Amino acid sequence: MSKNYQQILENIASPSKSIYDQAKAHIDNLAKPPGSLGRLENIAARLCGISGSMSPSIAKRCVIVMAADNGVIAEGVASAPEEVTAIQTLNMLDGVAGINVIAKQFNTDLFIVDMGINGDMTHPDLIDKKIRKSTGNIAKEMAFSRHEAELAIEAGIALAGDAKTLGNQLIGVGEMGIGNTTTSSTVLAALLGLEGDEIAKVVGKGAGLEEAAFLKKVKVVQTALQLHQPDKNDPIEVLHKVGGLDLAAMTGVYLGAAYYQLPVVIDGFISVVAALCAAKLHPLASKYMFASHHSFERGYAFAIEQLGLKPGIYLEMRLGEGSGCPLMFAIMDASLAVLKNMATFESGNISTDYVEKVDKIKEAAVLE
Amino acid sequence: MSKNYQQILENIASPSKSIYDQAKAHIDNLAKPPGSLGRLENIAARLCGISGSMSPSIAKRCVIVMAADNGVIAEGVASAPEEVTAIQTLNMLDGVAGINVIAKQFNTDLFIVDMGINGDMTHPDLIDKKIRKSTGNIAKEMAFSRHEAELAIEAGIALAGDAKTLGNQLIGVGEMGIGNTTTSSTVLAALLGLEGDEIAKVVGKGAGLEEAAFLKKVKVVQTALQLHQPDKNDPIEVLHKVGGLDLAAMTGVYLGAAYYQLPVVIDGFISVVAALCAAKLHPLASKYMFASHHSFERGYAFAIEQLGLKPGIYLEMRLGEGSGCPLMFAIMDASLAVLKNMATFESGNISTDYVEKVDKIKEAAVLE
Repeated sequence: MSKNYQQILENIASPSKSIYDQAKAHIDNLAKPPGSLGRLENIAARLCGISGSMSPSIAKRCVIVMAADNGVIAEGVASAPEEVTAIQTLNMLDGVAGINVIAKQFNTDLFIVDMGINGDMTHPDLIDKKIRKSTGNIAKEMAFSRHEAELAIEAGIALAGDAKTLGNQLIGVGEMGIGNTTTSSTVLAALLGLEGDEIAKVVGKGAGLEEAAFLKKVKVVQTALQLHQPDKNDPIEVLHKVGGLDLAAMTGVYLGAAYYQLPVVIDGFISVVAALCAAKLHPLASKYMFASHHSFERGYAFAIEQLGLKPGIYLEMRLGEGSGCPLMFAIMDASLAVLKNMATFESGNISTDYVEKVDKIKEAAVLE
Repeated sequence: MSKNYQQILENIASPSKSIYDQAKAHIDNLAKPPGSLGRLENIAARLCGISGSMSPSIAKRCVIVMAADNGVIAEGVASAPEEVTAIQTLNMLDGVAGINVIAKQFNTDLFIVDMGINGDMTHPDLIDKKIRKSTGNIAKEMAFSRHEAELAIEAGIALAGDAKTLGNQLIGVGEMGIGNTTTSSTVLAALLGLEGDEIAKVVGKGAGLEEAAFLKKVKVVQTALQLHQPDKNDPIEVLHKVGGLDLAAMTGVYLGAAYYQLPVVIDGFISVVAALCAAKLHPLASKYMFASHHSFERGYAFAIEQLGLKPGIYLEMRLGEGSGCPLMFAIMDASLAVLKNMATFESGNISTDYVEKVDKIKEAAVLE
């Protein structure tokens, strides 16, 4: 059923450069000063390149939410009890969580996936891809085996493929998992090769963590890195030694999006760390990614910079669940409306008079 | 027809603090860690306070676009010819400009207003509030008289009232006018009391301006300020001596929004400078304002900081026309979806089991 991830890695291709260039040229030809719609223009051109079409659609879209528990909570690094992972997963399945209302507002379907919740889950809409119940406490042992990491990545790849099969033209990547800011900070510190005191800069205080708890969280990350010494150039080693099953599965979704040539939107901190893992596994993976919002978690900025992406939304959100993705979908909708519906010089249905007008506007570099 | 602006200033009231507090309490009670939806939460609570309702609607909304020419273009400060103001105004009226497609995408009506285009305009949908054709060259003379500034402000107030009469629940403020980044920089420098070399920091290079043209633009702003010495504590003096008719009319829309208790969204640089004029005329005006996108024009950051507001969108846009407003409307839609549709502890339709779940979630400060 699942494809071998190495076969996937060997078959990731670049988005179409020629369609991207064609879209760029079209956008430069619209009745506005070149560049004046800022990154909206690049978003539209990238969607063209990825879809291989000058009139891409993103009307059918979804967010894939990976839920998993993390053994590292035994160290007291999370301010919420472990059962909240299961509870909030059920809330998402029942349609009452934050991601549900934001997704509905922007015509977005949800896929809620159990990758490793520490309990037996039963819900008709839950997608069961559980690799194991929770993970090892990374401060004392490996999170899971290399083989389990590969299985989780392959589950993510398969889900991206399923999303495409169901007609989705755009994917967002979210998660739910108590303790996953700790695993994400550890994975990010490993990928960046941070050591000693530097590590603290990718560890967030979140909302509820007091100074003492924060210092403990930094210490846990340092301990895990010292114990496992993961190779920064081997993201799968990093994931299985100090990561989480949500992170590994999300990494797979990004790789799958690239393989199936679907645009994919990053949510917040955990989501961007998985995106960085995917980009380290295949340099073309980031060509399919779009940043959404700038997470309040402070490690976010380091990861998104590594990916060479810029978020479009700054709202100090830190809910997770993929909640930033549908907001970005709305901005991407606007970028395609500009691409498809603004008048150009070449359009057949505009008068010579209008052509002259457009010529004059093209001379104008600053209208605002 | 138009109301005297001083009567308006005397009758601007604060949004409802008690409804705001009630909304905040409701949002803190939703099934998520308090604060985890960041500024989305405050946006929703503010919309409640402004509307005086726990279930406000912003479904019916519009952008008011003020078009006017500026005599200062005689100094060679704009890279586009003056006639582009009229041409692009006609394009907006014909539905083919950038603001048209972005507004349509987010169910937003447009009102295109001639405040001072330098020519005779005829279009059935154009709202004619022309005060005069263009303005004086601020490097050599006053832009217009104090009385004309007051008339323009009153026209803006009346338009906010008309928008409300037509059922609009939310207003955005945009503009079109070659040369209006120069007048806006001059007005902003005056309001901030900047002198000499400091002035350059609120002057933008835009997209097309070469270094030499930029230095000329700075020099023009300095010359205008030195010539007119506008009183920084008298925004109407600043507007009529060194401003534009678009800026004065937009100032009126913000004041009108506050008077008629409508939420109002700032677009880019010109829009935020007018917002600052309104806030200096009445300290409660900013209580009705929302920032949208962070304009690429570098003066923007200084003005929005003075207003104590934070933009939600960063896309390096600099089109003007009000084009950032509908993007923010979409984010405001999401904030109200959260307010209205997420489950709370108190909701009658949730089970005791769920109440327990919510209690546990409330303990969780960091879920992401």
